[in-house]
Amino acid sequence: MSVTAPEGFVAAGGSAGIKAAGAADVAVVTTDHGRPVPAAGVFTANLAAAAPVQISRAHLEATRGRAAGVILTSGNANAATGEPGREAASRLCDAVARGIDAHRHEVLVCQTGLIGIPFPMAEVERHLAEIVASRRGSAESGAAAARAIMTTDTVPKTALVKGAGFTVGAMAKGAAMLAPNMATMLALCTTDAVATPDVLRTALRAAVDGSFNTMTVDGCTSTNDTVLVLASGRAATPSLQSLTAALSEVCTSLSEQMADDSEGTTKVAHIRVVGAESDGAAHVAARKVADSMLVQCSLNGEDPYWGRVVSELGSAGVAFDIDKVSVAYGGTVVCAGGVALAHDAGAVKAHMAGRHIELTCDLGLGSGAAAVLGTDLGYGYIDENRTTS
Amino acid sequence: MSVTAPEGFVAAGGSAGIKAAGAADVAVVTTDHGRPVPAAGVFTANLAAAAPVQISRAHLEATRGRAAGVILTSGNANAATGEPGREAASRLCDAVARGIDAHRHEVLVCQTGLIGIPFPMAEVERHLAEIVASRRGSAESGAAAARAIMTTDTVPKTALVKGAGFTVGAMAKGAAMLAPNMATMLALCTTDAVATPDVLRTALRAAVDGSFNTMTVDGCTSTNDTVLVLASGRAATPSLQSLTAALSEVCTSLSEQMADDSEGTTKVAHIRVVGAESDGAAHVAARKVADSMLVQCSLNGEDPYWGRVVSELGSAGVAFDIDKVSVAYGGTVVCAGGVALAHDAGAVKAHMAGRHIELTCDLGLGSGAAAVLGTDLGYGYIDENRTTS
Repeated sequence: MSVTAPEGFVAAGGSAGIKAAGAADVAVVTTDHGRPVPAAGVFTANLAAAAPVQISRAHLEATRGRAAGVILTSGNANAATGEPGREAASRLCDAVARGIDAHRHEVLVCQTGLIGIPFPMAEVERHLAEIVASRRGSAESGAAAARAIMTTDTVPKTALVKGAGFTVGAMAKGAAMLAPNMATMLALCTTDAVATPDVLRTALRAAVDGSFNTMTVDGCTSTNDTVLVLASGRAATPSLQSLTAALSEVCTSLSEQMADDSEGTTKVAHIRVVGAESDGAAHVAARKVADSMLVQCSLNGEDPYWGRVVSELGSAGVAFDIDKVSVAYGGTVVCAGGVALAHDAGAVKAHMAGRHIELTCDLGLGSGAAAVLGTDLGYGYIDENRTTS
Repeated sequence: MSVTAPEGFVAAGGSAGIKAAGAADVAVVTTDHGRPVPAAGVFTANLAAAAPVQISRAHLEATRGRAAGVILTSGNANAATGEPGREAASRLCDAVARGIDAHRHEVLVCQTGLIGIPFPMAEVERHLAEIVASRRGSAESGAAAARAIMTTDTVPKTALVKGAGFTVGAMAKGAAMLAPNMATMLALCTTDAVATPDVLRTALRAAVDGSFNTMTVDGCTSTNDTVLVLASGRAATPSLQSLTAALSEVCTSLSEQMADDSEGTTKVAHIRVVGAESDGAAHVAARKVADSMLVQCSLNGEDPYWGRVVSELGSAGVAFDIDKVSVAYGGTVVCAGGVALAHDAGAVKAHMAGRHIELTCDLGLGSGAAAVLGTDLGYGYIDENRTTS
């Protein structure tokens, strides 16, 4: 189930010639009546933000947080494409707006794929009217939209959460460049809840901070990261807390799906730092461990080499006392008081042979805690990323 | 030529049972008369600093910058080993001090290898007197010392620079964990120049900042990084500038040898950022590009995917304007004004097929410039690091 699950949304996926061989590369999601509803977005912090990020930000500002639809394309990021790129992103919104009788500013745009390649707008424009016209409210249409935004993803990513009297549906893509301040990822959430743009923005920001922003694969922050939410207002009016909880659950599910499907991953690492001086310090330390190429290699080799973990903690830039640190894999403590601890090596080995590895570091200094989702580093990541051809 | 090239030093390399199969694992370098001479050190910023780092720092403080000798061991980092580790490092100094009739505080210690394994001091101690007694001033003895500190290095690393009336010799090891604030690396420089401890310290700090601290392989800062220099005072008295220049040349040569021999490297990247708001900003941006796993994969695949470079520059945390950036490989500009530029693809391809790749980014904002030495990311790095066994 996906973006068409909540009341009030229709979707379509199709091919517009961006990818080779007619692969699906355009998704369109709009309100069923074509009129704008409250909307919010969280965007990449990268100063090389792509054209679609610039355009969507501007559109949300112009409408003060309302949108009637979103167009998402895959295969070309339309990033580092200059003024022609901004014009192309704007024309994508135009094409959808024409099809649903809305204003251009009421359409948002997300794009993902290679950076620095001129976007083939002339070719794409020939296909858009047909794709927009094929929107439906069916589960199949939602699934087709989710498939159309995949790049190196091996499976589509969707989520559905039922709150008290309302529903949140979502789709996302993300494979590499998954890192702080959002992964290289696009996510679109829809909900039939009643919510103002302000409430939506607050809830989305909190949901993103607690999910996508605690995931890292390679420490790279992309040019195109975008998370959007549209609220049709056809169902109940949840409290901010209730809406945030539902959005958080959806975003957490999507980020776990992304980590699990990230390029070349054979292990998903659940890295927890506790006993830090603050939650913020714990987050910095956990991310340092998760981003460490050496730790990632050890995870790939199923080697509980905690010495590298301690070394990363010591260079994370947060308060640290080697004599107080302990490290555990799957709950088995292998290092305590900063030195090796005799332990059940068989239990650790069995734990590390699984796909999910739990690595917990106790700094022994305070009550700060944080968790970060990471992955291993294996041949697959290199295979996916050494060439773009 | 190595640490025995300058007047006044003797060295030895031998096996003390740290590594398996009798491989060389201990080097000893001392003054030929066994008396202390001016000395200085630069150590890791990692808060999980290993026992030998703690001991050497304390000894240099106790003597106010004088040392009669250095013992270096490989195969076990003696890091995350607690109080027994500190005692072992101290006893290594004791053993050398006894052999040359010096005080324990006049001996420094460097160790490299696996973290978190208790150091086999009892075994090692049985071999030390013999190794210390075998010190000679020959080139062969210097070479034996350089071989004894290798871990995953495939070749020993030495350097020799002749200044005006003085000589600087050096040996180093370093393979992975090469990153900011010094690589996982040990380097020992000797010189016959006349210099006070203060002058030595100032010159060494500048030399390290301009060499080892501008190299990165994986962004990991080790627990054991140490660079030492001892000055016998048998030759001329150089100016601070002249001594700094010679030390810088030696350290630059060693860091280039390290990058070239780093684990699994097939490419050495010379990454320059110019046009930044300041030299500091340029350094931060260059390091962000060099540390990027995605950029490193592209280098491995000989793919001039400048879009990833621009994305890293945009998320480096320094002033950046996408419309002003340009990127060149081997002098061929592939991106200008933030968009693709028609270029000689054959020239770029030929350049990237070589072992040394020059990547220059012009931010177009100011006159800040910096260069960082990096590497590619290939299967070899993973092979070396996935397991410790």
